[in-house]
Amino acid sequence: MSSSIYLDNNATTPLDPSVYEKMKASLKEQYGNPSSKYSLGIEAKTSLDHARHSIASYLNSSPEQIYFTSGASESNSAAIMGYCLKNKEKNHIITSSIEHPAVLETFKFLKEYHSFTVSYLPVNSDGVILIDLLPSFITSNTSLIAVMMVNNEIGTIQPIKQIGEICKERSIHFHCDAVQAAGKLQIDVNELHINTLSLSAHKVYGPKGVGCLFIKDKNKLHPLVHGGSQEMGFRSGTENVAGIVGFGQAITCIMNEWQHDLDHLKVLRQTFIQELSHISDWSINGRCTVPSTLSLTIRGIRGEALAQTLSYMGVYVSIASACSASSSKLSHVLKAMNKSDEDIRSTIRISFGKQNTLEEIIKATQLLTIATNKLRTLAPKATV
Amino acid sequence: MSSSIYLDNNATTPLDPSVYEKMKASLKEQYGNPSSKYSLGIEAKTSLDHARHSIASYLNSSPEQIYFTSGASESNSAAIMGYCLKNKEKNHIITSSIEHPAVLETFKFLKEYHSFTVSYLPVNSDGVILIDLLPSFITSNTSLIAVMMVNNEIGTIQPIKQIGEICKERSIHFHCDAVQAAGKLQIDVNELHINTLSLSAHKVYGPKGVGCLFIKDKNKLHPLVHGGSQEMGFRSGTENVAGIVGFGQAITCIMNEWQHDLDHLKVLRQTFIQELSHISDWSINGRCTVPSTLSLTIRGIRGEALAQTLSYMGVYVSIASACSASSSKLSHVLKAMNKSDEDIRSTIRISFGKQNTLEEIIKATQLLTIATNKLRTLAPKATV
Repeated sequence: MSSSIYLDNNATTPLDPSVYEKMKASLKEQYGNPSSKYSLGIEAKTSLDHARHSIASYLNSSPEQIYFTSGASESNSAAIMGYCLKNKEKNHIITSSIEHPAVLETFKFLKEYHSFTVSYLPVNSDGVILIDLLPSFITSNTSLIAVMMVNNEIGTIQPIKQIGEICKERSIHFHCDAVQAAGKLQIDVNELHINTLSLSAHKVYGPKGVGCLFIKDKNKLHPLVHGGSQEMGFRSGTENVAGIVGFGQAITCIMNEWQHDLDHLKVLRQTFIQELSHISDWSINGRCTVPSTLSLTIRGIRGEALAQTLSYMGVYVSIASACSASSSKLSHVLKAMNKSDEDIRSTIRISFGKQNTLEEIIKATQLLTIATNKLRTLAPKATV
Repeated sequence: MSSSIYLDNNATTPLDPSVYEKMKASLKEQYGNPSSKYSLGIEAKTSLDHARHSIASYLNSSPEQIYFTSGASESNSAAIMGYCLKNKEKNHIITSSIEHPAVLETFKFLKEYHSFTVSYLPVNSDGVILIDLLPSFITSNTSLIAVMMVNNEIGTIQPIKQIGEICKERSIHFHCDAVQAAGKLQIDVNELHINTLSLSAHKVYGPKGVGCLFIKDKNKLHPLVHGGSQEMGFRSGTENVAGIVGFGQAITCIMNEWQHDLDHLKVLRQTFIQELSHISDWSINGRCTVPSTLSLTIRGIRGEALAQTLSYMGVYVSIASACSASSSKLSHVLKAMNKSDEDIRSTIRISFGKQNTLEEIIKATQLLTIATNKLRTLAPKATV
């Protein structure tokens, strides 16, 4: 890491040192196949169960409702495709206009290739879905509603409990992408009336390539990956043992250090905003957000140019999400919030992690001020 | 590992030490999201491309034809579902009766929920598919043929080139599960006329939870996992960077040490068979096999009891495949070879790895002799 300052923790996080240690040990020593019946296999299986229990405890579910996957994109695809294609007699599905591509693209696929009708719930200018409109969107043909818990670009917390209650009342399947909520909010799948929920390890200081899907009742879903009936018959394939061990440890860290980490993130965010006083004409996108995310529009410069300039200075931020970093399209989230194209092009996303220090934040804002002034001086209008 | 002898390398393999070292470094240092545009992301992306090149070089494909997945079960599901559901105008598909569950269960799913008609190619008593029958199985409605390169339970090599030629001639999609062939055979996807091919890292001294799918033309397949368009738009989800780095290194090892490893495996297998002279009434299942696999029927005892007894002695073998270890069903592979139920119940699978030593093999056969004698003495008939 040396002198660089990593402020893109919504894209991915470095491993927690304890996660790294557990994974190293697992990679080296725990090489048995969890399906094997001898001690080496049983040890691997026990590790999976241990991680399953930790995650179940975090979500207040039973361990039998936690299915390990290769990450949240798979979890979202598996939940939405798995439920919709097994319950095709109803083919209207609802999501929000600010979901992650893993949800939006799955909806698009169901529309294009399986004749589903899709409705998109709008959001207000703060990036919170218009929950009052939801009942009017629902028809007798509505099968599933998918709304994320916390938005990945702007950090807004969505009214999940209210959606859950509406879904429960009408027997509609409620899927929730909780990737950016983990570690920032307490999640109780029962209290929130959630039927399926996705988590990803690498957003909470765990490894890339591992996630899980909470499923209230797996009999209501078709599996996505077929084979040797691992993961209680829902998700086949030899389990990513070391990855799952790391994921379990990451969730254990969350449970132990949640409040402490949250307080720290709040201080980082507040400090960052305070230090912005040296810059003119900027605004924050979204209200009611988790403290890890700060979507910032700095007028008169292009977000892309600013992120690049900062990266040369050793400060890593993104313009929207990592998933859309290689795309030239404007952020669909900011568009849904009715931001102008000019403002969207002038936006960067800063996302804090528990490993960031106050010194880093102060240094980053100083560099941000320098970069902003430089870009504004160089090409006051042309960069927009 | 201490004094135990691991002879279940078809179930999974320990990490090659060089794979472990590369993964450790990647886990600790390479935490950027490969989609991110700053140096930390670009480094991760470069590592993925490096692994992609190694695998492409092994398969004689172009790197753009290699898509990383979470393992072979996903690769098999993605290839078969992806092709069949995008090309539904033809709905007859053919596979062999000795495939891995990842293929068989995907076929079953297509039959049950998407009205596909499935034909199963029989095998001879040696476990080799009856290639001469294949043309008579094909109809004008045949869309896809899936046959594995090497069987996981008995190690038989299948006539892949002939199948490829038949498929090419008739414009039928040819999918090949090459999981057990990697490192044991040279694989040239062009020469073999393969359209899609699955590999798994953890069968070749790489990590669990990573695999790849070679796809000749990705436009002919629907993706299985939707989202941020990673893996050239075919397989979304943040990539398992450390896992892929490990997979790439595992394939590099294969390319460097292939002949040496194969010679070593041949010696291990020959020695094992020679040392069986102290046991009576046994036979080997399958002919024309890779040297890593030895399916052994030892009459008068139950394979399950033998495997358990050996595991108490520190020798780890399986009764069939790891995927079916928790199932009480008789091996579908041995059944397809027309073995009697009694013989199937008396069968164990021994699979050798490059890390096994000649001393281990001799020790294992001594313990196998003791275990066999013990079980035969204890319950000469009742155990069958």
